Amino acid sequence: MVNVSQTFDFAGQLSTMARERLEGSVISEVGGLVAANQAISFGAGEPSPELLPLKELKEAFESLWATPAVLSYAMDERGYMPLREWIVDRMFRDDISPDWVNPEHVLLTSGGAEAVHLASEALIDPGSLVLVEAPTYVESLITFRKQGAVCVPVESDDEGILPEALQKFLATRSYRFLYTIPNFQNPSGRTTTLERRQRILAIARQAGLPILEDDPYHYLNYEAPLPPSYLKLAGDDQRVIHCNSFSKIIAPGIRTGWMVVPPVLCEKMSVLALCSALVRPLILQRGLHEMLCRIDFEERIRHLCQTYKVRRDTMFGAMDSFLTPLGIKTNRPKGGFFVWGEMPGVTDMVDFMRYTVQTQKVGIIPGSAFFPSAAEGAGTFRLSYAKVEGKTLEQGIERLALAYSGYRK
Amino acid sequence: MVNVSQTFDFAGQLSTMARERLEGSVISEVGGLVAANQAISFGAGEPSPELLPLKELKEAFESLWATPAVLSYAMDERGYMPLREWIVDRMFRDDISPDWVNPEHVLLTSGGAEAVHLASEALIDPGSLVLVEAPTYVESLITFRKQGAVCVPVESDDEGILPEALQKFLATRSYRFLYTIPNFQNPSGRTTTLERRQRILAIARQAGLPILEDDPYHYLNYEAPLPPSYLKLAGDDQRVIHCNSFSKIIAPGIRTGWMVVPPVLCEKMSVLALCSALVRPLILQRGLHEMLCRIDFEERIRHLCQTYKVRRDTMFGAMDSFLTPLGIKTNRPKGGFFVWGEMPGVTDMVDFMRYTVQTQKVGIIPGSAFFPSAAEGAGTFRLSYAKVEGKTLEQGIERLALAYSGYRK
Repeated sequence: MVNVSQTFDFAGQLSTMARERLEGSVISEVGGLVAANQAISFGAGEPSPELLPLKELKEAFESLWATPAVLSYAMDERGYMPLREWIVDRMFRDDISPDWVNPEHVLLTSGGAEAVHLASEALIDPGSLVLVEAPTYVESLITFRKQGAVCVPVESDDEGILPEALQKFLATRSYRFLYTIPNFQNPSGRTTTLERRQRILAIARQAGLPILEDDPYHYLNYEAPLPPSYLKLAGDDQRVIHCNSFSKIIAPGIRTGWMVVPPVLCEKMSVLALCSALVRPLILQRGLHEMLCRIDFEERIRHLCQTYKVRRDTMFGAMDSFLTPLGIKTNRPKGGFFVWGEMPGVTDMVDFMRYTVQTQKVGIIPGSAFFPSAAEGAGTFRLSYAKVEGKTLEQGIERLALAYSGYRK
Repeated sequence: MVNVSQTFDFAGQLSTMARERLEGSVISEVGGLVAANQAISFGAGEPSPELLPLKELKEAFESLWATPAVLSYAMDERGYMPLREWIVDRMFRDDISPDWVNPEHVLLTSGGAEAVHLASEALIDPGSLVLVEAPTYVESLITFRKQGAVCVPVESDDEGILPEALQKFLATRSYRFLYTIPNFQNPSGRTTTLERRQRILAIARQAGLPILEDDPYHYLNYEAPLPPSYLKLAGDDQRVIHCNSFSKIIAPGIRTGWMVVPPVLCEKMSVLALCSALVRPLILQRGLHEMLCRIDFEERIRHLCQTYKVRRDTMFGAMDSFLTPLGIKTNRPKGGFFVWGEMPGVTDMVDFMRYTVQTQKVGIIPGSAFFPSAAEGAGTFRLSYAKVEGKTLEQGIERLALAYSGYRK
């Protein structure tokens, strides 16, 4: 038996960051409840398992082991150059990159999450104000707050951030950056229109505001072509740090994302990356690159989009059948994984989520998780169709409707 | 052409961390110079390429691809449980763990570097004082300073930190932790004796000082058994965070290290890890674990130790032949990769390093890199025998002697 009074008081030695700024994620709670109740999950933010390219990656990895270099420290601290070249080539073809971008400006990261983290370290001081879409990706909120940021939500609608709302904030105070997920946003599924992007960029220019653009759902586009990225629209003014990831289009477990860093920041960002984990796994970067060279990337994207579009349309149908008649409002995103909704009369969505998992064995994510303050987003929720399809999906939405009807009584 | 006046002034928007606390490493400069001059390198801090278990890892990885889980997000944010169990089992057998440690207290990290970084985030505030051995591992110094620490060097000799020096510091001010590499230290090769460990621990207890123990060279032990770790010696008082790594004994490119975290800190440390890169690559953790289950680990360690011991002894011989007659002092470490030396009359070792690479095509690491202030460690240097052997090694030491003779003229 350990005598507790003898143990060292680490709690009293914590940094301000560790003591005051860390928080868990409600998404983990949903995951645990779903597993414990063997529930149908609309909580997934990750690709469907059968769409992961196991065979292709296995074959690509087999070719890696000829040279010890693959197991040594990576010599290039920004990551495997051929993969960075592949990325830049792809970004030019897909209207993401302005002319100035070359592979020197690309830093490979441990998933998109590390890209957002490194940008946070570079730009946030304790007490800094950061503008975010409302709602926005919860893990990024947690990362910004860990660095000491006060996250200020900017009202958004189906076309993206409201320019007037952004302008109002900027009129009176100074902000470190605007964080935005312009395409098929997590959690709202929204895509910012070209006209909005242009207006937001014009406002950012006027206010001297940089933009942190996070674009992991870019390629999961089921309808019309996307507007150019903020990175491209900003062009030579270079006020945009662009974060992206292979997690949704290849596999989360490959833990490879990237950031496009303006030239003036490249050296700083490399040193930041060095300080936090020295170098990233070259073996994963090389295996991924080898696979990308062997497959037809565009064909893969087409296949992903076809598959997810069917699921999305199944969900839209089920929403029409079961949710709309009850007055539950849902949107109709054109890509990605997510639908955003609102349930009239539900004020405590965390409580409703727990009720729904336990009584109807269906998991959803409470919308309040995606706002800087848990007091916001009452009645909202996120649904994902990424890992559920067909009858199971329909049954899940029907059960969600049953939960709503039962909960209101 | 980009009109520079149009580009956004990111430099003016940087956080204090990015603006004031980042610095590169002189070790990178040596690496570049060695490559450019095709020099013999005594700079390596990594294992010899032919000792990397390419074949064993290749076979282990082939068995991984049966299930999509290997490419999904890791469900366990602390890392792959069977590997954490393997680690704990090993640490008990090797006198590293006290009774209280179980796999829940082990967090898998992206190399040992990330373990040190996470501990820094948890314990350092801007302006915090941190005690380090003088000299100490340069990348850790850089990481502590990035978090805002003032690193205070404590005098050390061949038996480790001088207890009297430590006590003197603690008498007047408060420090966040003592950072120590007790076994075959980087850069000095020194191992702290049991008697010193006990005295340092007693002083730490009296002063309420936690210890950050970094032990990546533990298994590269060529002579007598090691004293117990600080983690074990501290026992139930749990004031030690222990960092370790597979980089030196398996491969740096597998990017897997670990930290043993006292129970009271486990939850905080998991959230910190989540904030910086969500999760670490499960595929690497599983491949590594699979390999560890297939090989005879103790036999592997024996083989590594035999090989490096031969190189070390070759270096000792060459030092006796070429360096000692010139009055260059060097120590005689019992394990690890490094020898520490001092050249009378050389005040600017960075200048001497450049001279030596260019005139004699030999690379060494200036000792000043390993002190909190570059003004310290004048005349000292680090030699590594990790990646050089036989005649080449002898020739390299002979050339180093020639450089010294030439430089003094």
